[in-house]
Amino acid sequence: MAATHLMGPVLVVGTGLLGASIGLGLRQRGLEVRLSDPSPTAQGVAQDIGAGTILAPGEQLFPQLVVVAAPPDVTAAVVSRALREHPEATVVDIASVKSSILAALRSDPDLGPDQLRRYVGTHPMAGREKSGPAAARGELFTSMPWVVCAHPDADEESVRTAMDLGIDLGATVSRMDALEHDASVALVSHFPQVAASLIASRLLNAPSHALSLAGNGLRDTTRIAASDPKLWIQILSHNAPQLVGILHGMREDLDRLIGTLEAPSAPGALLDLAELMAEGNAGRARIPGKHGAPPQAFGVVTVLVDDKPGQIARLLADIGAAGVNVEDLRMEHSAGHQVGMVEVSVVPGRRQELIDSLTNIGWKVVQ
Amino acid sequence: MAATHLMGPVLVVGTGLLGASIGLGLRQRGLEVRLSDPSPTAQGVAQDIGAGTILAPGEQLFPQLVVVAAPPDVTAAVVSRALREHPEATVVDIASVKSSILAALRSDPDLGPDQLRRYVGTHPMAGREKSGPAAARGELFTSMPWVVCAHPDADEESVRTAMDLGIDLGATVSRMDALEHDASVALVSHFPQVAASLIASRLLNAPSHALSLAGNGLRDTTRIAASDPKLWIQILSHNAPQLVGILHGMREDLDRLIGTLEAPSAPGALLDLAELMAEGNAGRARIPGKHGAPPQAFGVVTVLVDDKPGQIARLLADIGAAGVNVEDLRMEHSAGHQVGMVEVSVVPGRRQELIDSLTNIGWKVVQ
Repeated sequence: MAATHLMGPVLVVGTGLLGASIGLGLRQRGLEVRLSDPSPTAQGVAQDIGAGTILAPGEQLFPQLVVVAAPPDVTAAVVSRALREHPEATVVDIASVKSSILAALRSDPDLGPDQLRRYVGTHPMAGREKSGPAAARGELFTSMPWVVCAHPDADEESVRTAMDLGIDLGATVSRMDALEHDASVALVSHFPQVAASLIASRLLNAPSHALSLAGNGLRDTTRIAASDPKLWIQILSHNAPQLVGILHGMREDLDRLIGTLEAPSAPGALLDLAELMAEGNAGRARIPGKHGAPPQAFGVVTVLVDDKPGQIARLLADIGAAGVNVEDLRMEHSAGHQVGMVEVSVVPGRRQELIDSLTNIGWKVVQ
Repeated sequence: MAATHLMGPVLVVGTGLLGASIGLGLRQRGLEVRLSDPSPTAQGVAQDIGAGTILAPGEQLFPQLVVVAAPPDVTAAVVSRALREHPEATVVDIASVKSSILAALRSDPDLGPDQLRRYVGTHPMAGREKSGPAAARGELFTSMPWVVCAHPDADEESVRTAMDLGIDLGATVSRMDALEHDASVALVSHFPQVAASLIASRLLNAPSHALSLAGNGLRDTTRIAASDPKLWIQILSHNAPQLVGILHGMREDLDRLIGTLEAPSAPGALLDLAELMAEGNAGRARIPGKHGAPPQAFGVVTVLVDDKPGQIARLLADIGAAGVNVEDLRMEHSAGHQVGMVEVSVVPGRRQELIDSLTNIGWKVVQ
């Protein structure tokens, strides 16, 4: 039973995927967790999977921390009630937008400045394809970013408590103000989400002979277009102002590109295309690498493997035996594959060595 | 030495990555391959790596097949010369755009209809980050799509020869007409390429605290934005008409989205967002799965692994031992990771079984 910074008890209000996962993770670390959800089923399932025990109606509880894990559009109201019902507790929310919620709380007639001091907005950047308490996992936040957005008037003790929550759950905790956070997630999360949807929408009426030529390029750019619309609609509408600015910038580039491609032999057309590609290269290169390290170009080794159980395991066992760490691994998915191709990324210094040792023991190395 | 459908000799004109890889692959299968490139260095390197032997100046050769592997903007001229210099040979090109090249050949005053009958446009959909003959690999085309675009007047024998080239190199050969091909690659290849560049361009001036929150969503949507501009500029300008139509469609969706987000509380705004997301879901779902099979939703099992050599190998060895085939594998790359997370995709029917057996032998399964 791991030691925790939090003392508890912790009240989790809203026992969906994230709320139940928080309860489960804290219980696994030995803290007292109580649960509350408007849906009897949701809080019942959460209790059954061990995320905590349901708070009885009218029961008196003096939690150290209340975690509001409600949908974005009701979060402010639930936080407001929690601040009033638990005058000693720190209250945090975990919605993926922060400014609109803080604004709603500041303009809440039922809340005094003293009460608002105990509120700290946070955003754990973790999730799953599935939703609901049955999908909860105590390790969901392990090593994932957890942003703490303390407003200027927040008690330092409450901020500390909010950070302890993320730390106790194994997350990588950082601090930003609400606007910084919303601008950041608009760019690195909400913008790619809508962009992927815009790209995938073009496939709706495509002939299947075209789609049969799809490779990893199309697959990667559209993967998150498969996301569940329900939550995203709330997120996008709550963070609309931040997102719109980015989309205006994209539209300017898109208009420029369309103009160029409508007269591809006009003077300067090729230069325009070169600039677009170069800007894309430079922007892509700014994304940090694994472990938040500066972006690094890994050496890629592509190996042919039979598409049957154990082959990739054999390959990686041989790589491990060579003492080389796999920084990334991709499986080639072009339609028509019978032989699998596996792209293994390693630190550039070890690439040739790995190619040699794999070739020596009979692997077909493509690159 | 594998049997081949081609008889040879095969003359490869242009010994860059693709030309040299074709020569190498055909040599490995025992065919006679001759090489020619305006750059003495390029054809010298190609010969050194075993892609064939350099054609001596003025030497008489009667090839069965001439493969023109020149850059798109000179391909038509090189094909035209090859058709005239080798009156018995089938001449194919491998440029990734087909209509503009066919149009140029049809309007070539030096070419008669009899000569054009021996031309067949093709497009092997394979490549590498690196270019040049030194990066050539004989297996580069294994299981990759290779589209044959025969024009209506092409000899059936020449079409057969063109298809034999792809088959002998282990590719998955299919037939389309040139316009179908160009429309298809505009959608599944050229459009995602420029879209990824448009997304990545937005990161150019982003604050680093924003980029530190980047997850796999942003990484996947921008991965191909790292592509080398040189070749792409030619491809995009040659296929501009096909690409522009798709970009106009994207701009309409983008304008609608911007309008919606500028008034997120207007009636119908949430419905508009829901429609965009739903269209993205539906478009994404149309991309075929592995082996060209219909799209399939795989069961995903996420496992925590220590980030050191051999761990993923151990995991996959245990999966192989359980007799479950790995359909796809992704490594979680959120900045800040110290523990690695590996997402393993398996056929849904085996998911729970795999989770159980992995958990039994001590793996931390997150989902």
